[in-house]
Amino acid sequence: MTAPSLVEQSVLLEPDAVRILDRRVFPFQRTWVTCRTYEEVAVAIEQMVTQSLGPLHAAAAAMVLAARQSARPEFLAAAGARLIATRPTNNHIRDVITELLAGRHPDAASMEQAAAALIERHHAGWRRLGTAAAALLHDGDTILTHCWAETYLTETVAAAQRDGKRIRALCTETRPYLQGARLTAESLAEMGVPTELITDGMAGHFLSGGEVSAFLSGADRVTMDGHVVNKVGTLPIAVCAHAFGVPFYPLVSGPDPQSPTAASVPIEERDGDEVLHCLGTRTASTLVTGRYPAFDVTPPRFVSAVVTDRGVFAPYDLASYVDSSARNADAARQASSKLT
Amino acid sequence: MTAPSLVEQSVLLEPDAVRILDRRVFPFQRTWVTCRTYEEVAVAIEQMVTQSLGPLHAAAAAMVLAARQSARPEFLAAAGARLIATRPTNNHIRDVITELLAGRHPDAASMEQAAAALIERHHAGWRRLGTAAAALLHDGDTILTHCWAETYLTETVAAAQRDGKRIRALCTETRPYLQGARLTAESLAEMGVPTELITDGMAGHFLSGGEVSAFLSGADRVTMDGHVVNKVGTLPIAVCAHAFGVPFYPLVSGPDPQSPTAASVPIEERDGDEVLHCLGTRTASTLVTGRYPAFDVTPPRFVSAVVTDRGVFAPYDLASYVDSSARNADAARQASSKLT
Repeated sequence: MTAPSLVEQSVLLEPDAVRILDRRVFPFQRTWVTCRTYEEVAVAIEQMVTQSLGPLHAAAAAMVLAARQSARPEFLAAAGARLIATRPTNNHIRDVITELLAGRHPDAASMEQAAAALIERHHAGWRRLGTAAAALLHDGDTILTHCWAETYLTETVAAAQRDGKRIRALCTETRPYLQGARLTAESLAEMGVPTELITDGMAGHFLSGGEVSAFLSGADRVTMDGHVVNKVGTLPIAVCAHAFGVPFYPLVSGPDPQSPTAASVPIEERDGDEVLHCLGTRTASTLVTGRYPAFDVTPPRFVSAVVTDRGVFAPYDLASYVDSSARNADAARQASSKLT
Repeated sequence: MTAPSLVEQSVLLEPDAVRILDRRVFPFQRTWVTCRTYEEVAVAIEQMVTQSLGPLHAAAAAMVLAARQSARPEFLAAAGARLIATRPTNNHIRDVITELLAGRHPDAASMEQAAAALIERHHAGWRRLGTAAAALLHDGDTILTHCWAETYLTETVAAAQRDGKRIRALCTETRPYLQGARLTAESLAEMGVPTELITDGMAGHFLSGGEVSAFLSGADRVTMDGHVVNKVGTLPIAVCAHAFGVPFYPLVSGPDPQSPTAASVPIEERDGDEVLHCLGTRTASTLVTGRYPAFDVTPPRFVSAVVTDRGVFAPYDLASYVDSSARNADAARQASSKLT
């Protein structure tokens, strides 16, 4: 039940800088990229120093760096716009920046307090998500996971472990950056989960063979009509899971109310050269070029249930997630009016 | 319309040895493994010096090496058994050895003549297969392919080119050995096919996006009930192709009459350590172990048509392939009886 070191310590806001664990080389090297300005954080996000939920933490910390430089609203707005532009597909950076700018923080101390509160609120949500996801698992289950679903996944595993459910894991290596081979494999093993690694093409074999109880992944964005946008490679696993009767549970804080359909989501195309290399070594013929769509889109017919910080929703019923927020707000108002 | 160098020159039977192009390092290095005995050929096949159709060529050449050592039937039978045991899933080695042993060749010269005739007969079949597969393609098509389908694929491309059909290709890199990134990418590009490389997890994205006209792969074995056994990673692509309305055409000389169902096919489990490395460099956390099923099994419901050396067959109608052989034999007998 130990939380893995990677999760707890991957973005540090320090007096002189933000330090970001370099996930491109973890766990082979445990080195930190020092960012002294929000611009340096933006570049680090673009260059994949951190990913998954890492940019959420990094963007919040970068706004504190920006506020240390100047708390003028125009300056902070420019910093926020720069950070949002780094990677367009995941909606977390946008949401973090929007919230921190809306707060109209007059100085760096105020921004830092708001950023810390935001992270703590998110973390509480991820714990609820983990509890809800773990309730879908059974003692003895083997979960298949893709890429690195970060706190979504570790809170799920932690909740399952609290419930006494023994879980095994198969994880895909997740080319080209090998997040699965490096981050997920390391983190799950650190948590005491028996973990085996497969290449990205092997998921079909294990899904068809009856060895997998459920496919769990993070989601960079879930649209209101139930499309799951996540690390490229999620779609073929989800389609295979569906074909062979294995449930697919994407894990996400919540659907994005600003994305009614998949057409609203920009899919980041990264430099195809990254596909031609592995850990810096050329892996491909010199006669070809590479393609690198960083995400794919899984239609709702392949999604069994979306697990969120408000519990489990059918992919066709994500309006209920938003409604539950309205209900919560109503309940809070009623409670408040009774007090006054 | 140039045949790629890799195909034409990958197994050489020479007076002193069999030389096999080392596909583990091609095209970065063009080095040859010298095998002076059938045992050394067997080890080379086990160690993946050659694969796809390479072991067919290598096994035939190895039997000539064996016959040079001794043409005693017991010795040749032992050599054949050793070679068949190298890699169990593909039926080519078994078929080559069975045919060459049945010939009862009294000396090495006779064995060499038989091996050359066998290869030439196979090659003629691959040319017919290529012609049949190319007829399923259209000018301007983009084919998606996985791993390295060798002469099946190059004869298909050559036939399409003869017909004036311009074909583009997307190929998966095919971890852990990167046959797609190295062998397929290099060979297709050498043939003048505009070729782009993707990681194994990206096939779903391109299939769902409407960019792919057909998925073509080789098959290590096709069972009589239409299951396609091929390099692991074929199954998820086939399932996605089916889900998004893209035809899947496995290419294979013919179905295996000795394999009525998938249960008859041994799936080779290779050393899981291979999954933890890429071109010799460790790619995974040291806390995990790897799994490496070398092949997966695609059920016939995901197969559009099986393309063979006798033309195109529905996956549920492979008995017709065998019947066509019987018909051919009948026709040959009738022709023969007319001559006598």
